[in-house]
Formats: sequence, structure tokens, C-alpha cells
Amino acid sequence: MDSSVSVIYIESNRMSKRKKTVIDILRDSPGFVSGEAMSAQLGISRNAVHKHVKSLRGRGYRILGVSRRGYKLEEEPCRLSMGFITDRTEKSAFGRSFRYYDEIESTNAEAKALANCGAPEGTVVIAEAQSAGRGRLGRRWTSPAGKGLLFSVLLRPRLPMNDAHMLTIVAAAAAAEAIEAIAGIPVHIKWPNDLFIGDRKAGGILMEVSGEQDEVEWVVVGIGINVNTEYSELPVALRRTATSLKMVKGEPVDRSELLATLLLSLETHYKDAVANGFERALASFRNRDYLLHKSISVETREGPISGSASGVDDRGALLVELPHRQVRRFHSGDVTLHP
Amino acid sequence: MDSSVSVIYIESNRMSKRKKTVIDILRDSPGFVSGEAMSAQLGISRNAVHKHVKSLRGRGYRILGVSRRGYKLEEEPCRLSMGFITDRTEKSAFGRSFRYYDEIESTNAEAKALANCGAPEGTVVIAEAQSAGRGRLGRRWTSPAGKGLLFSVLLRPRLPMNDAHMLTIVAAAAAAEAIEAIAGIPVHIKWPNDLFIGDRKAGGILMEVSGEQDEVEWVVVGIGINVNTEYSELPVALRRTATSLKMVKGEPVDRSELLATLLLSLETHYKDAVANGFERALASFRNRDYLLHKSISVETREGPISGSASGVDDRGALLVELPHRQVRRFHSGDVTLHP
Repeated sequence: MDSSVSVIYIESNRMSKRKKTVIDILRDSPGFVSGEAMSAQLGISRNAVHKHVKSLRGRGYRILGVSRRGYKLEEEPCRLSMGFITDRTEKSAFGRSFRYYDEIESTNAEAKALANCGAPEGTVVIAEAQSAGRGRLGRRWTSPAGKGLLFSVLLRPRLPMNDAHMLTIVAAAAAAEAIEAIAGIPVHIKWPNDLFIGDRKAGGILMEVSGEQDEVEWVVVGIGINVNTEYSELPVALRRTATSLKMVKGEPVDRSELLATLLLSLETHYKDAVANGFERALASFRNRDYLLHKSISVETREGPISGSASGVDDRGALLVELPHRQVRRFHSGDVTLHP
Repeated sequence: MDSSVSVIYIESNRMSKRKKTVIDILRDSPGFVSGEAMSAQLGISRNAVHKHVKSLRGRGYRILGVSRRGYKLEEEPCRLSMGFITDRTEKSAFGRSFRYYDEIESTNAEAKALANCGAPEGTVVIAEAQSAGRGRLGRRWTSPAGKGLLFSVLLRPRLPMNDAHMLTIVAAAAAAEAIEAIAGIPVHIKWPNDLFIGDRKAGGILMEVSGEQDEVEWVVVGIGINVNTEYSELPVALRRTATSLKMVKGEPVDRSELLATLLLSLETHYKDAVANGFERALASFRNRDYLLHKSISVETREGPISGSASGVDDRGALLVELPHRQVRRFHSGDVTLHP
């Protein structure tokens, strides 16, 4: 690994010593270990053993529990191959400094904190699980540990503040292209920031920014993708509207390959956008415009406004054709589709 | 004063005890005090006394120095009448929580720090002097102590990020209207953020913002106005291009009255903009558009682009008519006038 590449692994501080011992015992046993034996070995109640097992499952450990036989470790949580990733990205700007968390509240919040402490452009914060993951408009974003890609990239573009929102378009285009290249699945983008496969959401972008009117200080682009999530692992409320690459493709997708490709794709799009403007990113977005010609409503201050989506303009605004052929521009707003 | 109004005065921590003693000695003397006498009384060299006097002058104390006679305090730095201001603003949202600094690096930097610590909307940071005052594009902003208005207001609007830049227009309109009301001088606004009287700059706005694409977390609006600055107090480099209200009007302007009026004007414009959009602020801006019909150059990534300024559009972008009647929109950029 190049000496200028830095990968810092950060184990969750919520992973107590006891939980590690529970895993150690399970790892050492080829078969089942009874709750009683573990309780005796650890000097804690059987109920406490059960609680530890439950919490480990939430962290991506697949632990089988069978009454009268006990527990068995079937699968450890997946990890990204950081060596593979940095081999591919070490010559680029976005693949040199990684912070890879077992679990974190939010990769965006961590990247923002790093930004305010002077971290360089291209710093990447990854997490296998987020305890307070967020999507747009303060919505929750959940993903089972080790099954998705959850990461944030710190950017320091020389752009005025009112170009910053265009980086959502840049990131969405880069993510869509990377998914198509690695998983071979066509991806659409639902304005402004959702990644769709068919009629289901498979990922999204959450951009945060700080700076002056004339120049952005930093932008944090958070990207969340359901990669190998199983149907049964989706929150019940999302099972009709969400999907994952694996669910569509029928086989798992290499998360490390996807992340490396996405970082390279993001860097290419980003540098082009800052140097030459947003035309290339917009063209990629328009090729994948999920809403185009669909009947939609946009939530605004004045209430919902309905019409037919007719593309995005060169400022990234959504164009909607109203009933009397009048076209209205939306610079922000939540969009719902008519059934 | 209403119990819900808070005014915190913060004396500069750069005001050493020795300097206070120098002032105390000068205050106690109706006439001149010799440097020798002060040097003896303070137990420091005459050169050190001279340095303290020089530094105090930079803080707004007018100290006469006459060889063989010594020093005489002629005028103490002006202070804002916070009682008067809060009497007028206490029923509004922007006039309830003040931090009033003798000297600070930058009121915007302090307001940003307060914003990140959860300070409420309407918090006002004022300074009599700034040691690292900034204007747009990282430029310095200097003002002699006690002669200008230098303050920042913390806003927490429910606006998407790509509306945030419109608050510069809102603030410029509010400031121009307040100056006209109190000083009776017509003010023009040079896109996007400068306050002009005649062909000279008398003030400016510096907006900083942080948040997500869909919702701003906070906006800090910094306003700097040359109020009672004398020609001789302007930095030499700015004497041909800058002015002050006093220089134009020929008599001093009450800074406290101006600040109170400006805060009320800003609040009215701001609330209207968040509730109803930017039409009213834009109308006020357009009535005072300094560049309109002037021959200008806009500095862009591709180099300077020249044409005739033809107003601002409903997104606050500058419209420029190019030689072949084509109109180009600028969302950012530095504008210079052709001679």
C-alpha cells in the first residue's frame, strides 16, 4: 500500500469487552454452545447472554439459537477489502484517506466534524452500520450491518454557494454509473437525490454544505446504497418501496469493487464539474431521469402542485408542466408520484 | 429592560490592565499629563507609554500628543446605546439577544460559533472593532473603532439551501432602506452585496451558511456600514472608492438609531421572504440597482465577460446583455465597472 494512503479502522466503542468474549466463545466452538455453558464461563446470567447475542445480531453477526442446544455462529459480518479498494484508488484524490467505522451515528456527521477540523478533500468516512443514519428532510436511513454501502466524501470545491446543490446531481450520476458498471443493472435517478431500480428505491444522496455566498468552504456528500440487503432485512414499512442490488440481480454484489468504482466515478465527475460546469453530470442525470413524463405532485409552501415532470433545467431545477401547458420550475421540494 | 432581553458586553481581552491604567490616568487629568509623569507612575519606559497610547488610539480613543506637554484624552470611543436599541427592538425576534464586543476577530466567525452551539435565531453579535474583519472573497474589511456598524445576525430559516443566497438580497435591501430612513441619503446596491452612496462603497453584506440541500441549518448575515468614519480614517487605498454616511451627509448619524431600525427592517423583510418568497426584497433591490444599464465586466472561470447590466432575475442572478443582444445570467462572480 502506498505510504500516502491512510486507512483507519475504528471499532465501535459500543462493542463492549463482554460482547467480544461472547463472539470469542462462539468462534472457538465448531458446534452449538449452550446458554448455560456461556453463562457459567462469563459469570453472567443466561438472560444477559441472550441480550448480548441479540445485540451482536444487530451488528451483522448471524447467530443461530436453538432451544436445548444453544447458540452457533454461522456468519461474521462482512467487511470491505480496504486493501483492494486502496490498490485501485491510491493514485486518485478520493481514495487516500479512509476512516472505516464498525458503527457510527452518521458518516455525514463525522465527515462534517472532520471538515471543520481541516481534513483534506477526498477524505472518506465509511460505516458498516449507522445508529442515527439520516436521509433527506430529516428522515431515517436504515441499513443492516455489512450489507449496504454507507459512506461520506469530503469535498472542498472552488464553487459559489449557489452551485453547491449541483453536487447532488454530480454524486447521483456518479453513483448510478458505478452501480450500472459493477452490477449491470440500469439505475434511474428520482429528482433530486434518490437512486431507483425499477420502481423501487435502492439508495440516496444526502449533501451538506458550509461556506460563504461566493465560495463553499466544504461539502459533504453522503451516499447510501442497499447492496446485499435481503428482502427480510428491509424495515417492514419499506418492503413495498425499497430494494437492493442483490434482490434485483439475484446474486450478491462485491461491495469493495462497487465502492472503489464509485469513488473513481465520483472524482471524475466532480473534477469535470468544477472545471467545466455541470453539463456532463446533467446529461448523465437526464439519461436516467426517473420522473420524466410521469404524473407527479411537488410539495411546496403553498401546498401540493400537480403536473407532468418534464426534465431538469441547467440549474438542476425540476421542470413540471402544469395543466395549461405552463411550465413551472422547482428548486426544491418533495416529489410524489400519482398512482 | 424586558427580562427576556439579554445584552452581554464583552471587553476585549487584548485590553491589558496597563492600558486601562493609562486611560485612568488620562481621564483623571483635566489637562496634559507628561509622558515622564506617566512613565514614573506606571513604572514603565516612556517608549512603552507611547506604545500604549498608540494602541489605544487604534481602539477609538482620541489622545492628543504634544511634545514637551504630554498627552491629553480628548474623546473616548463611541458606544452604542444598547438601552435605546433594546427599547425599540424588544418586541421583535432580532433584538433580544446581543453580544456586544469591544473588539473581536470577526462578528461573523463569532456568530457561526454561536450557531453551531445552538444559539437561537435573531442572536446579534456586534463589535466596535474587528481585528480580522472580512468582506466577500476573503477580502479585508476595516473600520475605525466606534465609527461604523459591524454586526452579524444569526438566522435559522426554513429554506432550502439554494434559496440561502437570496438572503444577501434581503439583507442588502433591509440595510439600504434603514440607511435611507435614518440618514436621508439614497442608497444603491451593487450586485450582489455592496451598499453604495453615489459612486462609492459605504457598506457590504457577508453571508455564510451551513445546512443540507433541503434545509438550511443556519445563516449568518454580517453587515458592515461606514457610519461616522472620517475621510482621514479610511485606509489610504480606499479613499477614492469608499465613503461614509457622515462624509456624504456632512453630520454624524446616530448609530444606535440606525442599528435598531436596520434590525427591525431586516426582520420584516426576512419574515416576508421566508413566508412569501423573495419578490418584495427583489423589488427593493431593483429600485436601487447600482449596476443597471452600466457597462461592466464579470469575472468568471473563463475570464472576464463584458456587457451591459440589465437587472436581476427572480433567482437573484445578474443579467448581462452581451454585444449581440444575447442575455447571460450570472449566479456568482465579481463585477467591475468600465470607466
